[in-house]
Amino acid sequence: MKRIQKEAGTKDLRFAPEDVLAENLKVIQGAVTPFALVNNVEKHNVIVLLDKNLTDCGCPFVLHPCRNDKSCLVTFPQLEQFLNKLGYTYKLVDFGAEAAPAEPAKKQPAEKKAPAEKKSQAAAVEEKGETKLGIQNTIESNFSSWYTEVITKAEMIEYYDVSGCYIIRPWGYYVWKTIQQHFGRYIERMGVEDCYFPLFVSKNCLEREKDHIEGFAPEVAWVTKAGDSDLEQPVGIRPTSETVMYPYYGKWIRSHRDLPLRLNQWNNVIRWEFSHPTPFIRTREFLWQEGHCVWPTEQQCTEEVLEILDGYAEVYEKLLAVPVVKGRKTEKEKFAGAYFTTTVETFIGSVGRGCQGGTSHNLGQNFAKMFDINIQDPENNDKTIIPFQNSWGLSTRTIGVMVMVHGDNKGLVMPPRVSQVQVVIIPVGITKSTTEEERQTLLQEAQRLEKELNKADIRTKADLRDNYSPGWRFNHWEVKGTPLRIELGPKELQEKQLAIAVRYNGERRTVAWDGNVTKSLATLLEEVHDGMFEKARQTRLTHTKRVTDWGDFTATLNQKCILLSPWCGEMSCEDNIKTFSAEESKAAQSEEVREDARAPSMGAKSLCIPFEQPEGVEGLTCVCKGCTNPAKQWVLWGRSY
Amino acid sequence: MKRIQKEAGTKDLRFAPEDVLAENLKVIQGAVTPFALVNNVEKHNVIVLLDKNLTDCGCPFVLHPCRNDKSCLVTFPQLEQFLNKLGYTYKLVDFGAEAAPAEPAKKQPAEKKAPAEKKSQAAAVEEKGETKLGIQNTIESNFSSWYTEVITKAEMIEYYDVSGCYIIRPWGYYVWKTIQQHFGRYIERMGVEDCYFPLFVSKNCLEREKDHIEGFAPEVAWVTKAGDSDLEQPVGIRPTSETVMYPYYGKWIRSHRDLPLRLNQWNNVIRWEFSHPTPFIRTREFLWQEGHCVWPTEQQCTEEVLEILDGYAEVYEKLLAVPVVKGRKTEKEKFAGAYFTTTVETFIGSVGRGCQGGTSHNLGQNFAKMFDINIQDPENNDKTIIPFQNSWGLSTRTIGVMVMVHGDNKGLVMPPRVSQVQVVIIPVGITKSTTEEERQTLLQEAQRLEKELNKADIRTKADLRDNYSPGWRFNHWEVKGTPLRIELGPKELQEKQLAIAVRYNGERRTVAWDGNVTKSLATLLEEVHDGMFEKARQTRLTHTKRVTDWGDFTATLNQKCILLSPWCGEMSCEDNIKTFSAEESKAAQSEEVREDARAPSMGAKSLCIPFEQPEGVEGLTCVCKGCTNPAKQWVLWGRSY
Repeated sequence: MKRIQKEAGTKDLRFAPEDVLAENLKVIQGAVTPFALVNNVEKHNVIVLLDKNLTDCGCPFVLHPCRNDKSCLVTFPQLEQFLNKLGYTYKLVDFGAEAAPAEPAKKQPAEKKAPAEKKSQAAAVEEKGETKLGIQNTIESNFSSWYTEVITKAEMIEYYDVSGCYIIRPWGYYVWKTIQQHFGRYIERMGVEDCYFPLFVSKNCLEREKDHIEGFAPEVAWVTKAGDSDLEQPVGIRPTSETVMYPYYGKWIRSHRDLPLRLNQWNNVIRWEFSHPTPFIRTREFLWQEGHCVWPTEQQCTEEVLEILDGYAEVYEKLLAVPVVKGRKTEKEKFAGAYFTTTVETFIGSVGRGCQGGTSHNLGQNFAKMFDINIQDPENNDKTIIPFQNSWGLSTRTIGVMVMVHGDNKGLVMPPRVSQVQVVIIPVGITKSTTEEERQTLLQEAQRLEKELNKADIRTKADLRDNYSPGWRFNHWEVKGTPLRIELGPKELQEKQLAIAVRYNGERRTVAWDGNVTKSLATLLEEVHDGMFEKARQTRLTHTKRVTDWGDFTATLNQKCILLSPWCGEMSCEDNIKTFSAEESKAAQSEEVREDARAPSMGAKSLCIPFEQPEGVEGLTCVCKGCTNPAKQWVLWGRSY
Repeated sequence: MKRIQKEAGTKDLRFAPEDVLAENLKVIQGAVTPFALVNNVEKHNVIVLLDKNLTDCGCPFVLHPCRNDKSCLVTFPQLEQFLNKLGYTYKLVDFGAEAAPAEPAKKQPAEKKAPAEKKSQAAAVEEKGETKLGIQNTIESNFSSWYTEVITKAEMIEYYDVSGCYIIRPWGYYVWKTIQQHFGRYIERMGVEDCYFPLFVSKNCLEREKDHIEGFAPEVAWVTKAGDSDLEQPVGIRPTSETVMYPYYGKWIRSHRDLPLRLNQWNNVIRWEFSHPTPFIRTREFLWQEGHCVWPTEQQCTEEVLEILDGYAEVYEKLLAVPVVKGRKTEKEKFAGAYFTTTVETFIGSVGRGCQGGTSHNLGQNFAKMFDINIQDPENNDKTIIPFQNSWGLSTRTIGVMVMVHGDNKGLVMPPRVSQVQVVIIPVGITKSTTEEERQTLLQEAQRLEKELNKADIRTKADLRDNYSPGWRFNHWEVKGTPLRIELGPKELQEKQLAIAVRYNGERRTVAWDGNVTKSLATLLEEVHDGMFEKARQTRLTHTKRVTDWGDFTATLNQKCILLSPWCGEMSCEDNIKTFSAEESKAAQSEEVREDARAPSMGAKSLCIPFEQPEGVEGLTCVCKGCTNPAKQWVLWGRSY
């Protein structure tokens, strides 16, 4: 009651007597709910306070509809809408907070000074914001809901009204921008040049290479109209640019002096998939780079394929702190039309699935033959030589992998090198006894530190919004995964020590606030990167099992593992492994092994043939049930995205 | 005859007697043409020499078809195809060159040493290359042909098989990349964040703002199919992103603390125009950035509009060396749905036309009302406040303007700051008497200098291809517009002086080749930038005429000028000025005033109301024929792209 009195700004608070209720809300006692406000619109003399807990609770709650012999279920957004319609503002009050252990700073002078009305609006708005709440879903209970909740609440992604397309907000786009800069420099140093080929591709060009188009045709989006006019000839939207670019390669390349031709472009492509989309991971439009190079010899072509793969591994390991396995795809899994495909494979420990991180293809002479790319033999004018091509792509999927690998039940965990904000500074410890001067000094010091760190290229933000409590701000930046949080209070100011919370492992650190502070923080950020990488690497190591007998295969798979198993090289075994593991999983299906709704029926695919082959494959037989062929290679098997 | 003998590698050359012709080509004397080779396929004992002039000539030439009482027209590509089909290689010989004044270095040891066969192939390939020839069209005779020839031969653009779409090759894309980096940093410092919104927009969103969609609807491309399936609901491709983004702005923006919202994206947009496309200038797909910001007050919104316009002016003036006029568009010319539009206007002196360089719009509250973007009034909870928006875009049109402003009859002229190669080094003066050691020293020194300059961030390329003559290489880099060419010969090596040719004004400079060489060249490049800017500024100044009487209007316009003329502010006068100037131009049409096919019938549009208004508009009447209204402003009028 005291709290209500305070929040409503009234004195001498009492329950309303019958007549007052009748006059103002036209309901009897026991039937007073927000719904009764429909009868108060003209008088408009009611102050509405709502318990903050209502907003935290995803499920609907029960209210009487102006009479107490009926009930109805309402969600908080519905209630909010109802109040908006009537023109009522409301104030959210954290009634639970009084009982709960107090946050460092409970009341701030700023809050006190704000007029009640302003504050009420501030509180209401605060609770409407994107990141108002912690993450509701857990990784363990529902991974895919956790994922979508995290990327939306961390303001990486906004859902969009064209299915399979998503808005990449600045917090997500910054990661991509960093990848662009890093990998852009990498290929520039190699000698690859940037260019831009059109979004549209004619039907004629698109269909030139048979295997390739078979792979992509069902997903090509077609423009058939402009304004109100039908186009004479529909144009496709590139799902990738091989068939867009290579007719022109044929035109440009005449002699060995035109080689190598090494082009790259950063663009958007469209693959109109009909399967369930997942932001970043599987979307109808995505951003990527695609490189397309032509070399006179197969060896040079392959060398570049591998140099690019190293670049992709670098993006994952050095920027995103995600370990990868480099390897070659099987014939079944290779790029449509390629001679062979190399890949960096990542591992999502929470669901025990692999995820293809980026691919670099050696196209051999296949496309060159189709698109008349050839040169005169410098040794013999009468002959032509067909050069060798490669193509390679890295997409915004990188961001999704990063989220899945590092995120925890509190939200996103950002690897420092790609985080738009690396360090957030939040003033704490402002209490009733804090003087205005002390408060000002604290805020000024926070800003000074922010400036100093930014000057040293440590991306820092001092969050000084005094209309949000420190606890709210802690939560906000935690959901967004900011690597380091500095809690700056009078104590820190006095002792010249910074209290730091490390997002990825929850550790608390103390760093001397002296002339070396930027250096110390830079070192700490590097340590965070290394720690995150090592944590992810350990997860992958402990979830990569060597299995040589079929008897262990599916059970191990269902322990959220990926498997290194011997394979004879036959595609039929590859198909069978998928089928058998799916069937056995279904049979063994139980709550324990189900990590999400899709998993149980999903069989194991070959993720890659790792370049680093463990010893001892000689003498083993293929892992596939019933196959007695000698094994040729260790293959990495697993469920995958 | 001597030349043929030499080129064919034969001795004692004679005309073939009747029997030899009959046996080998099955034709009579007087009927010997390449067509006769159809009868030589088995023997295959003919050496084919073609005059290089054939390749230079765009028009077909006449050949007898194995008999000399018939003739047929053949183009060089057809002839080439014919020879290819038969399996004949040929050698291009510049028979005309013997008479023409010799290039600095005529014969090089390298050429001498190459076996005849290899050299023949080299020569043939050389002539097939993109930049084999100088520019055939002149600015004066046919500007639009000159333009397309320059951008293709300089390897900026390749024509594409979907109309209105073009391939931007590395030499062109580098300019865009530089603009992205520069302007990207500019807005980042302002506090604008990068993001990415989808390519597709639903019909529903697209049609929300009426004026806006009226402006864009006829040009929207629609995807109606994916693979073989018809989409339930067609999706449009963004012509710009206001209607893509603003529904989400409405969702994100709740309180004044969510403002300002300042987002930018670099992307591709589609406007399916049906008028004649011009690469870079008017294309169906183009690359641009689009910024979209929301501010609580109109003043803040306008301040940003102008700060962005300054950024655009900086791109033109500081990077592209193109002067601009900043101003405001008239109501007629403003962006569909905007409150007002500001613009940077450029001037293409060669055709006397203006070209809109980039626009920054204040959208007022118009879109906010349509898309429910509003915040609660912090002073009064019951009220909402509608914020103010702006949007602004700069596209790859910049590159087209740059080409048109600076190019000359020798080809492109690149402003140094955006040129992928700023300095090209070409070894010269290698003669018969040059020893192999001297030659090697020269090449090594060229490479050493290349490395030294690149290290100092002067983008340098040593063109050491000894299969191309120095003259050919001079021409190659001249067509591409490389700002500086260093001609490095034994003399320069000895005297420690660099001989430099400056592309934009044809001047020759000498620079001491000492420890300050990188500094000297960096200074020279700055000088080139300033000189190019000043030249373009002078052109614009001398072609901007102040005209207050209608009697002078059209005649001045037809002298390739833009006009500063007083205007009463009525849209009817704006329409009339366009109509009248078009009619009068048609009437006065003569060879002298026609700069290209489209110009004569084109009337003058208002380019902008310049921010810098000359004095003296008071007391003047509107320039429009018959209008007696007092003038309100000076307006810049002209033909435009």
